[in-house]
Formats: sequence, structure tokens, C-alpha cells
Amino acid sequence: MDEKACYFEDYQLGDSRTTGAKTITEADIVIHAGQTGDFFPHHIDAEFCKNTEFGQRIAHGTLTFSVGVGLTASFINPVAFSYGYDHLRFIKPVFIGDTIHTVVTISDKKDHKKRANMGIVTEHLEVLNQKGETVMVADHLLMCQKRDA
Amino acid sequence: MDEKACYFEDYQLGDSRTTGAKTITEADIVIHAGQTGDFFPHHIDAEFCKNTEFGQRIAHGTLTFSVGVGLTASFINPVAFSYGYDHLRFIKPVFIGDTIHTVVTISDKKDHKKRANMGIVTEHLEVLNQKGETVMVADHLLMCQKRDA
Amino acid sequence: MDEKACYFEDYQLGDSRTTGAKTITEADIVIHAGQTGDFFPHHIDAEFCKNTEFGQRIAHGTLTFSVGVGLTASFINPVAFSYGYDHLRFIKPVFIGDTIHTVVTISDKKDHKKRANMGIVTEHLEVLNQKGETVMVADHLLMCQKRDA
Amino acid sequence: MDEKACYFEDYQLGDSRTTGAKTITEADIVIHAGQTGDFFPHHIDAEFCKNTEFGQRIAHGTLTFSVGVGLTASFINPVAFSYGYDHLRFIKPVFIGDTIHTVVTISDKKDHKKRANMGIVTEHLEVLNQKGETVMVADHLLMCQKRDA
Amino acid sequence: MDEKACYFEDYQLGDSRTTGAKTITEADIVIHAGQTGDFFPHHIDAEFCKNTEFGQRIAHGTLTFSVGVGLTASFINPVAFSYGYDHLRFIKPVFIGDTIHTVVTISDKKDHKKRANMGIVTEHLEVLNQKGETVMVADHLLMCQKRDA
Amino acid sequence: MDEKACYFEDYQLGDSRTTGAKTITEADIVIHAGQTGDFFPHHIDAEFCKNTEFGQRIAHGTLTFSVGVGLTASFINPVAFSYGYDHLRFIKPVFIGDTIHTVVTISDKKDHKKRANMGIVTEHLEVLNQKGETVMVADHLLMCQKRDA
Repeated sequence: MDEKACYFEDYQLGDSRTTGAKTITEADIVIHAGQTGDFFPHHIDAEFCKNTEFGQRIAHGTLTFSVGVGLTASFINPVAFSYGYDHLRFIKPVFIGDTIHTVVTISDKKDHKKRANMGIVTEHLEVLNQKGETVMVADHLLMCQKRDA
Repeated sequence: MDEKACYFEDYQLGDSRTTGAKTITEADIVIHAGQTGDFFPHHIDAEFCKNTEFGQRIAHGTLTFSVGVGLTASFINPVAFSYGYDHLRFIKPVFIGDTIHTVVTISDKKDHKKRANMGIVTEHLEVLNQKGETVMVADHLLMCQKRDA
Repeated sequence: MDEKACYFEDYQLGDSRTTGAKTITEADIVIHAGQTGDFFPHHIDAEFCKNTEFGQRIAHGTLTFSVGVGLTASFINPVAFSYGYDHLRFIKPVFIGDTIHTVVTISDKKDHKKRANMGIVTEHLEVLNQKGETVMVADHLLMCQKRDA
Repeated sequence: MDEKACYFEDYQLGDSRTTGAKTITEADIVIHAGQTGDFFPHHIDAEFCKNTEFGQRIAHGTLTFSVGVGLTASFINPVAFSYGYDHLRFIKPVFIGDTIHTVVTISDKKDHKKRANMGIVTEHLEVLNQKGETVMVADHLLMCQKRDA
Repeated sequence: MDEKACYFEDYQLGDSRTTGAKTITEADIVIHAGQTGDFFPHHIDAEFCKNTEFGQRIAHGTLTFSVGVGLTASFINPVAFSYGYDHLRFIKPVFIGDTIHTVVTISDKKDHKKRANMGIVTEHLEVLNQKGETVMVADHLLMCQKRDA
Repeated sequence: MDEKACYFEDYQLGDSRTTGAKTITEADIVIHAGQTGDFFPHHIDAEFCKNTEFGQRIAHGTLTFSVGVGLTASFINPVAFSYGYDHLRFIKPVFIGDTIHTVVTISDKKDHKKRANMGIVTEHLEVLNQKGETVMVADHLLMCQKRDA
């Protein structure tokens, strides 16, 4: 795990990176149901799902979010920390066997209201499946040090 | 898993429920790192963490979110579906051995702009630890059918 | 997890409830083999199984039992505790992809021989697959407080 | 995994074997809760457990049973199959860190009522912890071929 | 788990044993990726793999090694310990659904250079798939006590 | 997961890189025992281990190897593939709570005997614990394309 200091000034609006991809397997859903206790039939009951709109089991929203975010964890920025997420939306279902990856785009930058040496960088996350369809979006808020602070 | 139809009209502003609780164990963090590929040292490297602000490993934000949301999955509402989350914020770290639960409060209701038979219910989620400290908040958006639609 | 006091007197012979269902996946068998150390080829060796009566891998009996019982864990009864099981029988094999649920029926009630304030309630468990076939039965013994004890 | 044909006649009343042992870890309980969906606070909520009779989390009964039985899975008997269990009783709780093993004793043999070439062998299972205390017992019913059948 | 003292003199050149087999499932690869953090697309990205030489996901080399060695863990030899491995080679890929087992052959014996009471036994491990193809080989070095030492 | 073509000529003798670190938890050992079926008491029986040389459970050699290698999986080299390992040695035990990382040093380069366009690069892996002690070594053989081949 590499460490790279990336200050508020280093983030450029519109800059974008694409993560590696992961296939969401039946095992992933079983493990996620087990970790969260979310045993909703939409995720663990194949018979129930035959009669739903999608006709099959779908990944938990929290699984899509966890993997979509996890795939972005490629280097450590010691001068920033995660603040939260806004506008998290599940656009399309993720099915067993779908392969997802994330595109991260710097979509906003603003000064921190109270702390002059800090800024808020917004990373727009777009999680896509193997067909290029967007399955999830979210705005990740990163609190960053300013370089000369 | 019980099923109970809960229409837009059935949700009352200010209504609140408290979920069961789960202790976040070292095993949970190991499994979550494995599921997401997020091997950041803040979660899996106890030596690194000795020199951080907290002095110990912390749960992934996505783990706190997944468990905090999973604990609310107690009954199926066939006339509603999850739309997304707003204003997800990580307020305090969750450490190994902390026990978290979630308080769900109906905080907003509004008509759907385009679909007359639907409304948006906002569930405010507050995840608390065993000391009663809020560790995470989020607004869950639920799209619900109206009763007479 | 809701808590509801259910006393000896509250259980009615013949009362019945049906749990949610869970699909038994290949991942469940892999995880169960790992947890128990039961690496019998009937569960983990697909080639060996081609030459067995069933032609495919089957779930461990302990897995069917654990899930069949686990699905009944929907509310906490603070005035009762599990005493054991009688007449546990594996009727039919559970295959990968089968979806099982449990029907719980109150089949017997009797006073505790030594403790006047307690009674034994028998819950008959019947685990069924998606075809409605019974795959497992067991009698669950519940030691319950009497209401006016 | 060795295979050894062991016929009805080969089982001797009173014969006994002792399995290897396994420490029941916090991870085992987390994984078992996940596999079964049994999120009862007795197993996953350390805070709740502080106020119980035992003062700490306990293993699921189904976990003790699954591991206690799994430890006996040391060789394959192609002329017998598992029929079920009788008189399964949880005698003492199993705590995180307890190490359990199983003693298997041939406690009964009888002819099969309908099939002249088969017999029923009862293996009495006794699961013990590291203090030598019995934590679980069960009678395992094994349907065996007779040698000259 | 049986214990059996097997001294240096007891190992005979050319002696061979065959282990049980295990099917390598998608779940095994998911769990192994999670345990090691090796999220290479060759193992977890089914779309990427469509364009590789093999056209599908393959097991991690470390998974094949871990299972191939694990299958040999059938009895404890209290007078020997594992020293290491030489000449570990991955001959063919292991795909999801392949079933592997290990053949262990005593291929070399020599005195320990410095300790007169010890010898080095080489176990040649050959891991084969269900087609009888060798997928991995390695030489396991076992340091053994001499009987009359 | 970044991709970076690294040809035979690009590897320089003596070049070295240090990976991130991972704490080996009790959960990791439980999961590894489950994945491999290696239920040797040295890994899963805390009581047995009290009477061993080390007084406590130790990680499986295959776990140390899998994690030590997995930590090096940081970028994809499309012009090389893993050939095998030589001289894998377990130097010191890894205990629950130890934190390990890997130092990779280019220790040898040679032409491939039969294929003029390929070379063999040896990466010496040294796995160290939090005290700086070497717990494992191995020589990783990488078959690489030559740049102008």
C-alpha cells in the first residue's frame, strides 16, 4: 500500500481515475448477508426472487457501496481523511455474476468554512457494470490539508 | 422475515424505532477487508495504528454503514423500496469491541415530483455505540406507494 | 431484534408459524465445511459425488440443522430458554441451490417434573425445500416460565 | 480422508474414541451468526451479555453441535449413513476461548425393524470443554449394513 | 486428529499416499482473495479473464498450494516438523469447479548436516486435477528425529 | 489495480520494494484452517498449544506464505507470469497478533534456456514481523518477456 501526500491544491477539477473491477459472486452476497444480518429474501432466497421484477437475487445496496468504495482504496493520502458521502443513489440492480468497477472524478472543491488550513474535495463516484451501465453514484467528501497551511 | 405493507400515509413524522445491537469484532473487520479489498493499514495493520490519532485499528466506514443499515432489516415492506442515502457522515471511529445499534426516525415526507401515486419518506439513521455516542448518521430515502394510489 | 415475553400459558397446541427462506449455496457448504472441519467428500468433492446415489454434493446435516433452526430466531423470549432437541431426522438431502424454510408448530406442553414454576413446550420443526418436500424434522424443547409463577 | 468399511457387527458396545479439539473463537461465532442468520444478542452483543447470567457471549447451540459433530468426521464408512440424532441436550454454555472435543461411545445396537440386512448403531456423543465439563450430549443414529447381508 | 510417531527410519523411499480431494469453488477464490488481499483480475474479474489465454478466472497459486498442502494434514507426527519447500512449480491453471487432490511420495532422505540425531525427509507433492493432470508440484522438507537418537 | 509493463531488462539486481503490512489475527487462522482443512492442533487448539515449545497457537505455514505473497500483489505486469518458488523456508513462527510485511529484492536474472525472447527474474521475498525478525523467505521465479523480443 503506497503512501502519497495529495494536498487540496493537488486535486484538479475534472481529473478522473478508473479502478480495477470485481465480479460480484453468489459467495459475496452470502458473506455480506452474514456480516450485516440483512437476510432480506431479495438477496438470499432464489425462489422468492423468481417472482420479483428482476427474477433473480440482487446484491445488497450496502455490498455494492462497500465494494464500489473499496476498489478505490489504492493509495494512502496522509493529509486527507474521509468525511462522508452525499447523494448516494442505487440506479440499477447488481446481479450475481456482474462485474463492477468505479470511476472517480473530482467534481468540486471548496474551502472549509471554519478551518482556514483545510478544504473539502468532492470525489464523484460512479460504479459501472460490465455493460457500461451506471449502477450506483455517490459524492465522496474528502477533507484535505492545504499545502502551505 | 415478516412482511408488512407500510404505505406512505402510514409513516408518521417523528416515529422512531431502535434496532438490536452488534459488537464489531476483529473478525468483522478482517472479513470486511477481504470482501472489499480495502486493506488500508488503518483497518488491518495494528502496528501502523499505534502511531495514529486513535492508537488502534478502526472499522471501515463501509462496515459501519453496512452493519448500521443491516440491523434495520427486520421486516419487508412490499410497497416501498430503497432509493438511496443522503448526508452520510462518519462522526466518530468504531473500534474493535464496540457495540453499535441504530435508531431510525421518520424525519421527512414529501410527494414524488413526477409520480402522483408515490411519496418519498426519509428515515434518519443514527448509529450509536455502547457509550451512547453517535458514530454515524445518514438519511435513508424510501420511495413508498400511497395507499389509495 | 424484538423481545416479547411468551409464557408457558401463551403457547397453544397446534399454533404454527412459517419462517423466511434461505437458498443453500455452494458458498454455504464451503463455509460450513471450513467451520466444522467436516471435509467429507459428500460435501466438498464434486467428482466423488458423481458416483454417489445423488450424483452431486449435498449439504452437511449440521448445516441444514443450523440454518433450519437459525431461520426461527426472529424474536427473543426472555422467559424461556432452549433445552435441547429430540428426534432430529434427516429425511431428504439438501442440494446446492435448494431453498429451505422452517415451519414451527407447538406439538406438546407439559409441566416440569421438578420445578413447579416451569413447563416444557415442544416446538416441532419441519424444514421444507422449494418443492414442499420435508428435508428435516426435529422436536425443539423449550423450558418456559409459567405466568403466575 | 480414509475410507474404511465398518459393518454392523464391527461396532462393539462400549467402544470409545476421542476426537481432536478445537478452540471456539469469537470469529467462529461471528461466522456462525452470519451463516445461520441467528443474530440473537446472546451471541453477537457483548453489552447485552454483561447483564445476563453468564456475563459474556456464548456460542450458538447449533455451533457447538456442528463443531462437536464435525470433529468426529475422520474416516468414511461406505456401508453406513447418518440417520439422525436423539436426545440432543445443551448442558453448559460454551464461551469464546473454550476448547471442545468429542468422545464417541457405542451405546446401543439393534436390528432394523423392516430391513433384515441393516442394523441401527447408536453412537453416544459427549462434547467436553477444556475443564473436562460436559457441554453437550447427543445420540447419533447410524444405519449400518450387516456383513453377510 | 490422530497422532502417530513416524521417525526418520520409518520413511521408505518410494512410499506414497493419496489424499482426499476438494473441489475449488468460486467461493474458495473469493475467500482466498479476501484473506490475502490479492485482488488480481485473473482471480476476481470474470470480464477481464474473457480476454486472457484461459478465458476464465483461475485460482491463486497460493490457494492451490494451501489446499494441496492442507489436504495432506491427516495425522500429527510429534517427532517431525516442517522445514520448508523447494521447487514449487505451478504447472497448469486450476479453474473454478476443478477438483484437486495430492499424491505424497517419499523422494529423498538424508542426514542432517549438523545434528546427528536428525534427518531430512523429502516428500514430493504432486497436486492433480480431476483429469489426472498435474497442476502443481513441490518438495516438502521434513526434519525428523532418528529413532535411537 | 494498475497495470505496468515491466520487461526483463527493467528489473535491476538489488532493486528492492517494501509492501504494506497485515496483522495476522485469530480470525485469519480460523478462516485459513477452514479453507485448507488443516485442523492441526498447532493452529486451532489453544489448550494443546499451551504444552508446545511456543505456548500458543501459530499461523499455518501456508497462511504466512499466502499473505506474504499476497501483500506483493500491487500492480499487474502483463509481460511476466509467475513460474514458481524455490527455497521456501519458515524461519520463525507467526503468532496471533503479529504484523507481517514483505521485502522484495531482485536477486538474480538469467536468460531462459530454451526461449530466446524470455528471461527468468528471481525476486527474493523476505517476510518480517513487527520486531524486524525474518519469519519466512522464498525465491519467486518470474518469467519475463525481453523488451525487443
